[in-house]
Amino acid sequence: MRLEKGWFITFEGNDGSGKSSVLQRVQEYLLKENILCTTTREPGGIEISEKIRTIILDPSHHNMDYRCEALLYAASRRQHLIERVIPALEKKHVVLCDRFVDSSLVYQGFARGLGIEAVQQLNAFAIEGYMPDITIYLSVDVKVARSRSSNRGIEDRLEKEKEQFFYQVEEGYQRVKSLYPERIIEVDANQPLDDVVRECIQIIMEKIR
Amino acid sequence: MRLEKGWFITFEGNDGSGKSSVLQRVQEYLLKENILCTTTREPGGIEISEKIRTIILDPSHHNMDYRCEALLYAASRRQHLIERVIPALEKKHVVLCDRFVDSSLVYQGFARGLGIEAVQQLNAFAIEGYMPDITIYLSVDVKVARSRSSNRGIEDRLEKEKEQFFYQVEEGYQRVKSLYPERIIEVDANQPLDDVVRECIQIIMEKIR
Repeated sequence: MRLEKGWFITFEGNDGSGKSSVLQRVQEYLLKENILCTTTREPGGIEISEKIRTIILDPSHHNMDYRCEALLYAASRRQHLIERVIPALEKKHVVLCDRFVDSSLVYQGFARGLGIEAVQQLNAFAIEGYMPDITIYLSVDVKVARSRSSNRGIEDRLEKEKEQFFYQVEEGYQRVKSLYPERIIEVDANQPLDDVVRECIQIIMEKIR
Repeated sequence: MRLEKGWFITFEGNDGSGKSSVLQRVQEYLLKENILCTTTREPGGIEISEKIRTIILDPSHHNMDYRCEALLYAASRRQHLIERVIPALEKKHVVLCDRFVDSSLVYQGFARGLGIEAVQQLNAFAIEGYMPDITIYLSVDVKVARSRSSNRGIEDRLEKEKEQFFYQVEEGYQRVKSLYPERIIEVDANQPLDDVVRECIQIIMEKIR
């Protein structure tokens, strides 16, 4: 199936919401349907973005200011957008991207307390109009998300604090969703994976065909 | 002389305008007058800012997008402000800073064509109200600046292009100055160094005492 234009589709949600599994299954479906498709996530192997992420994630940078962090995420996003996303959109691909601007609105804007609007303005500079056509927000009960991400080896010591953080992120996503009701579509990710994937595919296919 | 508060003073101008010599002489004067004083420039040895600058200046990153570059400058500025400038202001120092937000307005906003207003908004996020009390803009004729910076070994090959760029930067500073007429004070840096320094000291002492 040859598309008239590229489509930019992002996936958002808490850790443990199943984003990467869903994304992979959606990609498999699209490829089977002969739809050109690019799957990515920041920094995605883009050299400059990778180097920026290294600075953000370096544990010795515990004194990094939250605004500095938000600026670095935006810089990494910009370069990944320019080098990876836009070229794929220009080739009329469906671009499936694991996290994008909404993650910054939720994590830096809401959870870190910098303000959703301020972080949105910052990201508007970075993305220059390249907003996703659709954003699929995989919402999960915090207990489900916690149990799934615990399986990936999160430590027990900070359990309580981390649970608090999961609730905060979930609340952040609800706020951001209310700001972009047209673009952000919530999918109940407490369902079995097959059902989540089916719902995502339906949303995407309705949009792009 | 014990000051009631800290003062944040920035120096701006084209390459070859003599900023660093002037700054050093002003510092010597202030110290002689027993005025607590901190001299700095971004990234100024701040670990996170230095690492960000390394990414910006890496010649292999010739494909770095201008917006990514502007975001990285703002991130480096933020961390330098938090770790170096604000603590010195809190100790009631006169902080003399070689280049600050106006350099981004001129170089990224005007010369790179991203727009002065857009780059100003971005930097407003980074500096969060910490605008300089005074900015001394050292203006020089392009020929004077060129001859001074040629002495520092600029190559001949790109002479013409570089001359064009000097004019563009000078025009950028005039634009930015017109936006902040209260804050930015122009000093004719074609004069002999002693006269430039005397004028700068007079401007600063009138403000801070």
